[in-house]
Amino acid sequence: MSKYIWFFGVGKTEGGKELSNILGNKGAQLCEMAKTGIPVPPGFIISTEACREYMKHGQSFLKKIERDIENSLKRLAESLKKIRGSDFPLLVSVRSGAPVSMPGMMDTILNVGMNKQAFEFLKNIDERFAYDTLRRFIQMFSTIALRLEKEIFEKEFEKWKKSYELFREGKFSSVEQAYYNLQNLDGKAKIQDREIPAEVLKLVVEKYQEIIREKGVTIPENILDQVIIASEAVFRSWNGERAVTYRKIHGLPDDIGTAVNIVAMVFGNMGDNSGTGVLFTRNPNTGERTIWGNFLPNAQGEDVVAGIRTPHAINESSKSQANSHLPTLQELMPKSYREIEKISRDLEYHYKEMQDIEFTIENGKVWILQTRNGKRTARANIKIIHDFIKEKIISESEGIMRVNPKSMFELLFPVIDEDKLKKHPIAKGLAASPGAVSGKIVLFSKEAEKLSKQEQDVILVRHETSPEDIAGIASAKGILTARGGETSHAAVVARAMGKPAVVGAEEIIVDYETRCIKVGENIIREGEIITIDGNTGRVFLGEVPIKTSDLSQEAINILKMADKIRTLKIRANADTPKDAKTARDFGAEGIGLLRTEHMFFDEERIPVMRKMIIYAQKYKESYEELLKIFEEITQNGFPEGAKILSVLKHMRIIPSFQRGKTYSNVFSEIENLSINEVNIAFKKFRETREIYFGSLSKIKEWIKGDFKEIFSVMEGYPVTVRLIDPPLHEFLPKNEEEIISTAEKTNTPVEEVRSYVEKLKEQNPMLGHRGIRVGISYPEIYCMQIEAIAEAAVELIKKGKKIIPEVMFPNVIDPEEIKYFRNVFDIIVKDIEKSESIKLPISIGTMIEFPRACILADQIAKYVDFFSFGTNDLTQTVLGISRDDSGKFMPDYLKLILPYNPFTNLDVAGVGEFIKIAVERGKKQKPNLKIGVCGEHGGDPDSISFFNSMKFNYVSASPYRVLSARISAAQSVIKQGKIKSLTKKEKTAKKTKKHKRAKDQKQASNKKIR
Amino acid sequence: MSKYIWFFGVGKTEGGKELSNILGNKGAQLCEMAKTGIPVPPGFIISTEACREYMKHGQSFLKKIERDIENSLKRLAESLKKIRGSDFPLLVSVRSGAPVSMPGMMDTILNVGMNKQAFEFLKNIDERFAYDTLRRFIQMFSTIALRLEKEIFEKEFEKWKKSYELFREGKFSSVEQAYYNLQNLDGKAKIQDREIPAEVLKLVVEKYQEIIREKGVTIPENILDQVIIASEAVFRSWNGERAVTYRKIHGLPDDIGTAVNIVAMVFGNMGDNSGTGVLFTRNPNTGERTIWGNFLPNAQGEDVVAGIRTPHAINESSKSQANSHLPTLQELMPKSYREIEKISRDLEYHYKEMQDIEFTIENGKVWILQTRNGKRTARANIKIIHDFIKEKIISESEGIMRVNPKSMFELLFPVIDEDKLKKHPIAKGLAASPGAVSGKIVLFSKEAEKLSKQEQDVILVRHETSPEDIAGIASAKGILTARGGETSHAAVVARAMGKPAVVGAEEIIVDYETRCIKVGENIIREGEIITIDGNTGRVFLGEVPIKTSDLSQEAINILKMADKIRTLKIRANADTPKDAKTARDFGAEGIGLLRTEHMFFDEERIPVMRKMIIYAQKYKESYEELLKIFEEITQNGFPEGAKILSVLKHMRIIPSFQRGKTYSNVFSEIENLSINEVNIAFKKFRETREIYFGSLSKIKEWIKGDFKEIFSVMEGYPVTVRLIDPPLHEFLPKNEEEIISTAEKTNTPVEEVRSYVEKLKEQNPMLGHRGIRVGISYPEIYCMQIEAIAEAAVELIKKGKKIIPEVMFPNVIDPEEIKYFRNVFDIIVKDIEKSESIKLPISIGTMIEFPRACILADQIAKYVDFFSFGTNDLTQTVLGISRDDSGKFMPDYLKLILPYNPFTNLDVAGVGEFIKIAVERGKKQKPNLKIGVCGEHGGDPDSISFFNSMKFNYVSASPYRVLSARISAAQSVIKQGKIKSLTKKEKTAKKTKKHKRAKDQKQASNKKIR
Repeated sequence: MSKYIWFFGVGKTEGGKELSNILGNKGAQLCEMAKTGIPVPPGFIISTEACREYMKHGQSFLKKIERDIENSLKRLAESLKKIRGSDFPLLVSVRSGAPVSMPGMMDTILNVGMNKQAFEFLKNIDERFAYDTLRRFIQMFSTIALRLEKEIFEKEFEKWKKSYELFREGKFSSVEQAYYNLQNLDGKAKIQDREIPAEVLKLVVEKYQEIIREKGVTIPENILDQVIIASEAVFRSWNGERAVTYRKIHGLPDDIGTAVNIVAMVFGNMGDNSGTGVLFTRNPNTGERTIWGNFLPNAQGEDVVAGIRTPHAINESSKSQANSHLPTLQELMPKSYREIEKISRDLEYHYKEMQDIEFTIENGKVWILQTRNGKRTARANIKIIHDFIKEKIISESEGIMRVNPKSMFELLFPVIDEDKLKKHPIAKGLAASPGAVSGKIVLFSKEAEKLSKQEQDVILVRHETSPEDIAGIASAKGILTARGGETSHAAVVARAMGKPAVVGAEEIIVDYETRCIKVGENIIREGEIITIDGNTGRVFLGEVPIKTSDLSQEAINILKMADKIRTLKIRANADTPKDAKTARDFGAEGIGLLRTEHMFFDEERIPVMRKMIIYAQKYKESYEELLKIFEEITQNGFPEGAKILSVLKHMRIIPSFQRGKTYSNVFSEIENLSINEVNIAFKKFRETREIYFGSLSKIKEWIKGDFKEIFSVMEGYPVTVRLIDPPLHEFLPKNEEEIISTAEKTNTPVEEVRSYVEKLKEQNPMLGHRGIRVGISYPEIYCMQIEAIAEAAVELIKKGKKIIPEVMFPNVIDPEEIKYFRNVFDIIVKDIEKSESIKLPISIGTMIEFPRACILADQIAKYVDFFSFGTNDLTQTVLGISRDDSGKFMPDYLKLILPYNPFTNLDVAGVGEFIKIAVERGKKQKPNLKIGVCGEHGGDPDSISFFNSMKFNYVSASPYRVLSARISAAQSVIKQGKIKSLTKKEKTAKKTKKHKRAKDQKQASNKKIR
Repeated sequence: MSKYIWFFGVGKTEGGKELSNILGNKGAQLCEMAKTGIPVPPGFIISTEACREYMKHGQSFLKKIERDIENSLKRLAESLKKIRGSDFPLLVSVRSGAPVSMPGMMDTILNVGMNKQAFEFLKNIDERFAYDTLRRFIQMFSTIALRLEKEIFEKEFEKWKKSYELFREGKFSSVEQAYYNLQNLDGKAKIQDREIPAEVLKLVVEKYQEIIREKGVTIPENILDQVIIASEAVFRSWNGERAVTYRKIHGLPDDIGTAVNIVAMVFGNMGDNSGTGVLFTRNPNTGERTIWGNFLPNAQGEDVVAGIRTPHAINESSKSQANSHLPTLQELMPKSYREIEKISRDLEYHYKEMQDIEFTIENGKVWILQTRNGKRTARANIKIIHDFIKEKIISESEGIMRVNPKSMFELLFPVIDEDKLKKHPIAKGLAASPGAVSGKIVLFSKEAEKLSKQEQDVILVRHETSPEDIAGIASAKGILTARGGETSHAAVVARAMGKPAVVGAEEIIVDYETRCIKVGENIIREGEIITIDGNTGRVFLGEVPIKTSDLSQEAINILKMADKIRTLKIRANADTPKDAKTARDFGAEGIGLLRTEHMFFDEERIPVMRKMIIYAQKYKESYEELLKIFEEITQNGFPEGAKILSVLKHMRIIPSFQRGKTYSNVFSEIENLSINEVNIAFKKFRETREIYFGSLSKIKEWIKGDFKEIFSVMEGYPVTVRLIDPPLHEFLPKNEEEIISTAEKTNTPVEEVRSYVEKLKEQNPMLGHRGIRVGISYPEIYCMQIEAIAEAAVELIKKGKKIIPEVMFPNVIDPEEIKYFRNVFDIIVKDIEKSESIKLPISIGTMIEFPRACILADQIAKYVDFFSFGTNDLTQTVLGISRDDSGKFMPDYLKLILPYNPFTNLDVAGVGEFIKIAVERGKKQKPNLKIGVCGEHGGDPDSISFFNSMKFNYVSASPYRVLSARISAAQSVIKQGKIKSLTKKEKTAKKTKKHKRAKDQKQASNKKIR
């Protein structure tokens, strides 16, 4: 039989932080702290294994371990006697604690063990304390373990508070009188819980007991029964909707289960020398090295987390607008504060991580109830990592491993552009999570989910949020609450998700019924747009100008450390000078994908483009007609035709559109022939050629200008230009109106334009006449692009700039395709080099994006300098799934079949295998073949790790993902244990962690593969 | 330096049949015959290497070998003196001769060496003979070597013939008078060439010489100059349009070149004891063992081939309607006939093939000018192979290797259904190539090409055809000529191409000018439909009933021999009982692909199908809604919901639509809940479920009936049923009218139908929501099909029939997909087996048609009994080419990039590699995994050879390709040298041929790969 129960602080502590899979994170850290000498109350843990057994067998399993729990409680009680004396009753907290932290997602019941006997004992210590503890117990046990409705108790308590307030204000002669005259709750009581005297709490308790009787349930007297019921509630909460949603959002598995922590109660509600609080060992918003948190005097834990009462700051620097008037812990209990500060530093050093700590002070004595790695903003994380490295708590590579690449983007969180700001804020709250954002007001989470699915930007505005709102917060662009502090639910969750949030904007009244918010006299309805500024706490009506903030120095330093380690070059996918500039600013070392098609959609250019496409076809038809005539007349006794014929055929092989062979001799020779059939066909050929080449020339000049701009921005770095990729019909008119306007602008009959539009339509455009297939059919278009690229480069090189263009051919599936264009390319480049007396550092490559190209990679490699994997198309063809259409079944597949969306994370098992084959075969043929990726996956951290393991030269991502790619690339080197020069210290650290890391990686990869 | 000149019949013969690559086929056989003692005139060959040099260097190369040719002519002249005496002038024929036979496609010039001196000598022998020879020489040399227009000479000759005819009829006093009074040629002369006397030929020659003078050209006197000019003409003709077209049609390479045969002339025009003819050693239409051919007395070779004069039959059995009145060679020159007959048998035995022989009789002496393997109809070929085996000339496997699998279909050539025939023929000609066919009359080859591109069936009707018509014949469904015999151009080419042809239908007058044909008083215009019967020579106006003929006994015997040898099973793709019946008749050993989608398009069924599709979605929506509600209420304090929730979730895993779990307990439990939200959602769920399942039930009964019919036809053989493959939108209405009618028939608002039609539309349906993806989204549909298959089988098995159903899942890309359905499948089958107390011999398999399935084949194999490659989709995804859209660029690709269309021939280099990977991985996981193919390539002979080498268990082809597949499968075993039990004789034969075969195979595969 497995060991289901683990002790800490009772005899020798049995667990430690390495056992969080079995003990849950909370439990494992309790054990760890107990071992390290941190003051934690003693207790024991029912393991996650037990939870899994419970999920399988239900109550029969609990029956099985009942005796063990009973014995454990006895043992705990024995141990506790040494601390509290022999008469003090055993009271415990029963808390959930999963292997991964899911703050607030599962249930906790405090003061378990309360019964008549215990109550009497506590009453002897302090009557108010006893009633307060009993009230809390009944309320939590009834709602969580016995599943009565929360609101009944909350309302009841509120009613008594209000009654006492009215009584105290002298409006009634007794509290009872006030209570029974109270029609409805007109606003919440302003009074604080701890001001309620014992007499009133007694009335509350009596009322609570009445409710329980009415509902026909009973709370057992026996602590064993209470613990078992409470534990079952914890187990059950693992599959609660909130917990399930949380796991879905965070990509956590559903089958690991939670542990239950049964810990001796310490009492923050024992009087004014007591209290309870939470803190971070560093500021979670900025990362600054001061402990930062809140506390409530004379209260128990749940009061802080729930955000019901405005908590006190623990010190000056934790103060906010809401609690600036309240005394700090440092002021109220300086000795306890110092002790807490010391424990914080110890824990941080021990764990080598910023900690999020729960503490309780019982009569001046500090107890730590929980520690875990603290959530923080991306910006704070970078600062903390940076400072930890500086303080030599961790090494550089440990630091880099701690950066979440996906959150790098958040460092560039948007800020209000103050120069352009002309509005005044309508309200101000706490800056709970950085970033400025505009969106429509929604008041309900369901509504937020619905609208965000319709791609609408919404701001979730709530009086306060609770765990039920988790999906709504995930859907919203930003969060605004009227109540709550910086550790309130809304603040914590928003920070964890990297969403801008303003909390505790007290001027705002949220009216759920009429679905609006009120600020002074302003009424703002659901659906209206507001802007929140999570950096300063301001709230604006409507939109205001927003810009991207700069990178912090700490971030720049860490990125530099990463750059030293990584071997992968990071490039960006960029189509415009603006994108290129952004990419450079973020440290991109070149452009890995410059899509040229965007250059043609400009309003001025598109009519010429359309004309070109129509004439490409007319030209081709006339060319083939001419060829046929010459074949015929040559055969039928016109020997001079043979030479012309061979030149005409050669035009298919060397299709140069301006450079290279001009064929003018042959053309005049043909012109001078007096064969009627030839004359007619040749006239058509010349005419269509003139218009076709004329359009190409115009386009060439335009795009040459574009290339020059982008090349200039990227001076000194390679720029990979992909030749036209989409099928030509994408450029043609889409509707009748456009057809008519195209007909006018291209001087072509409407009927003819329509017929070309029809002719080019496709059933499956993804697998259609696109990429190099367009080049093979209309080689002049590709020639035009190659010439524009080469000439743009030459013009800049002549001005002394260092330009490194790379020409890339999409959709290649056969060596003959690229052989054909390698020949054409060489001719064009040589011609330019000769006429300009210049050496052009230009290279040629191909995308690998269809399975056949992977298999024939060795033969294709012969003709190119580089491969660039187009993982989007490769995923589509390897899986036979059109990305555009996958929405219809991908949700079903993610539920039942696939572990993740292959268009987001590279499908290593399928697509990855093809990449491997292509790299192996390509490099075998040409060992110095350069290899990169320019598909969507080039910016995905998991995928980057794979590309690194395949020894890619570079990845190319969208400009905004360059930062994260730089980190990911370094992380993958570190993970593979292949850093070139480790410091001695790092080497030692590595050795000891090697085993664990290997295990973690294995687990991670198991998760991926399922 | 290479050896460009090779002698035969002069000294020791230098070549042999094995050198046809260098000497051309004609030359190699001349050498072979010379060595074997067959009477061939002596000569020498200028090799194909010389041709290739000429193509590269032109005349400068000819200059280089001029001296060699001169010396060779001298040597030939010396040698000839021994035969003809010392004064006889050296006259030679200069003939083309490529390594592969291209009959009539290239040029030949006879009587080269004619000059004054030679003429004088011949005149001394016979004046008419001399003039006739001179006339022929001038005409051929001028038109072919000097490229003057043919028609000038032909018209001139015709005019003189007519003039002589008129003179002989007494209409003029002299031939000259007639000639100069002749205004225009009113119909051709009826007179035969050989009746023209010397005096008239003299006038013709004088006129010819006048023409040449007028055109400003000269014929050199020197034989060396003549031979060089003539040889150059031959070389040049290699790249003539006719030759190029022929090679394109027959898939021959363009760069091998032709040899030139320079052979001493023998004279069929030396008088009435002379003549020339062609013959086949067996009947090329029926395969019967009698020599079969035509000859012309006192004529030279070209007269026979051109089909200008009606030739005499060589014997009784060669006689046709056209020449039944003319004496046969056997009658005219019995001794020569007997000699020819003996030579025929000798040659046939020597070559082990039916031969096509050209002979000339000069003054009673027989000379063989050429032998080559004779073209024949597919039916004749089968008979000849069969008889050769019987006569022990070749072994069984040699015989099978000689069958062209692609021509097996021609054995089933269509015949007129005489029982239903009600028309009388309008004309009768020679049955030149078997098969009956209807089509529109076209008179010009270009027109035939054009219309056939528009998918129109045309019959090319010509007065006579010439090599210029080759492309037209290839485009037409059948050929009809008014003139020519069974060895005329039209007859030979039509037979070679397997096209029905009627030739020499002399009643028909073709009027090219008014574009009609006249038969007696009937005028039939171009575009009107006729039917020709190549089996009997009949021509009908309009269409007549046509049926397929039965297989001959010889064919059946040969197929049986092939069946003994092959290891691949041959199945058919068949969707209907009729197709299944056809497949069985042709020997299919099961159905490899039964596409079920066709079952739903029936007029009665499609509305139900559409209703089912709409309700599949509605049901799914309502199911998910219900699930969500139970998740919510369970979480919010309704513990009983948990059990219901888990059952509801289970319905996703075991979706059984009728069998298995009915869930009725849970449903009534839900019904009895008094929660409003649940009630509403459940009502919707039950309603949609009822309609959805109701439609499924109806469909199930229909298709169960279909399955029973097909299974019955295929009793004892496996039937692989593929579950629904196309995306569901293919079944939905396509236009507004259909939408409205569907709305009516399904009782659904029009708007809703339209919205579902819109919702299901796809960008790239090929890569969309199809195949097993439909099953994963709507598992009930697949369940319904599985149940229908299993129940149909059970009902038949209970009647004592042997039924072997196989269920196949399309579009699988992940093991989880098939794991899911393996589970569902097992539950359904077990349930049926249990309730029916029967053991069901049913198996489960998957199509492998996307690259990811190939890579994960090992994991997929775990859950299936068989793989069936869908090479169509696999080709589409491996190459990233949509077959439907490939027409736009495939022509360019076939010119420049790909050696063949990958949708016709399996792309071994790309797709083949994936198949290899899948087979290896699949078999590694499950060694007894059954492997087959059901894509288009399953019927392609080259591809079958590949599948055989991959050790497939079966291929599945369309029913009409089963015959060819049986042959191909045997051939691939023979090619791999893996016949289980060879006869002793065959083993010896194999040994000696092994080397050559390996070489041939290498060449063939080189050609494929390029």
